[in-house]
Amino acid sequence: MKIAVLCSGNGSNLQAIIDGVKSGYIPAEIALVVSDRKDAYALVRAREAGVYRLALSIGDFKSREDFDREIMKNLKARGVDLVVLAGYMRLLSPEFIREYSDRVINIHPALLPSFKGTHAIRDALKYGVKVTGVTVHFVDEELDNGPVILQKAVDIREDDNEETLLERVHKEEHKLYPEAIKLFAEGKLKIDGRRVARQ
Amino acid sequence: MKIAVLCSGNGSNLQAIIDGVKSGYIPAEIALVVSDRKDAYALVRAREAGVYRLALSIGDFKSREDFDREIMKNLKARGVDLVVLAGYMRLLSPEFIREYSDRVINIHPALLPSFKGTHAIRDALKYGVKVTGVTVHFVDEELDNGPVILQKAVDIREDDNEETLLERVHKEEHKLYPEAIKLFAEGKLKIDGRRVARQ
Repeated sequence: MKIAVLCSGNGSNLQAIIDGVKSGYIPAEIALVVSDRKDAYALVRAREAGVYRLALSIGDFKSREDFDREIMKNLKARGVDLVVLAGYMRLLSPEFIREYSDRVINIHPALLPSFKGTHAIRDALKYGVKVTGVTVHFVDEELDNGPVILQKAVDIREDDNEETLLERVHKEEHKLYPEAIKLFAEGKLKIDGRRVARQ
Repeated sequence: MKIAVLCSGNGSNLQAIIDGVKSGYIPAEIALVVSDRKDAYALVRAREAGVYRLALSIGDFKSREDFDREIMKNLKARGVDLVVLAGYMRLLSPEFIREYSDRVINIHPALLPSFKGTHAIRDALKYGVKVTGVTVHFVDEELDNGPVILQKAVDIREDDNEETLLERVHKEEHKLYPEAIKLFAEGKLKIDGRRVARQ
């Protein structure tokens, strides 16, 4: 099982995945880390872990489709079975999603279908929910919409702000994402319409 | 603190509230149980608890507004401070909600804003979420929309069906609703826009 991790920033979920692979918890190899920003700290983490890195700038390509094709070319060259989005701030092209159908996963800092989009933590606090959480899901053509693999609830505290809540959500992400990748790598996930069963 | 409980059916949440009042956990008196169905088992529970009962049929009234006015007349006559919806299958009129602004609460078998509406359990299973739950919230003009008082997550199991999941959700409801009513009765809830703070 070979996985690629796509990042744009700090890469704390990438780190959790690197650690999970190193310890043997995730029975897979990280074949490639891709960043769409050359200064992403995720690339430093990848280098320190001795993982192959690819940094691309959208500005160097004629279109989003060309950009995604360059990534796909590299995924194929390295025999990638699973694409893991870890703070990757770019939408994948329909062609990419078709090509890697049921093999792209994402993590979202809310209990989907609540609080889709890029401000999930802020939106949850604004709405005034008392429970939010983390969702790992397969990626389909719609934003934050694909079949749910794992979810974990996180209670919101009376004195929470964006920072404190984000910290607790991240802590759960760093456990949940390796768990989901482990299940995928072990062939234990079966997609049945919108539902993901564990086998 | 006098509360009215509005029901349409079995009244298992009513029972949890009756028990909470009897044990002294909820520092309030149930002044009135209203049912819009004369054969609702909730009325039997109320009778057995020695609680004043009012059963009304919408068919006996010219309009929904008249029906709600009859209920409001009774709430006023009995000095009700808090209106608790417990499986009440009827939408309250805008006039009712204005009159009892910030004093009507509801319980919903999902983690709002996910799965609004009358099929929350079924919709959660269909969507394939791994975590759902229970929400107690103030009632405003929009369906399942008002400020959230309490929420509790319920994990969905691999082999859950509507019946098994509903049972576990109900179990949490019967704890969460008395807790929310207790907090209200103790004057500990403060609504600040969409957020409900505990004092």
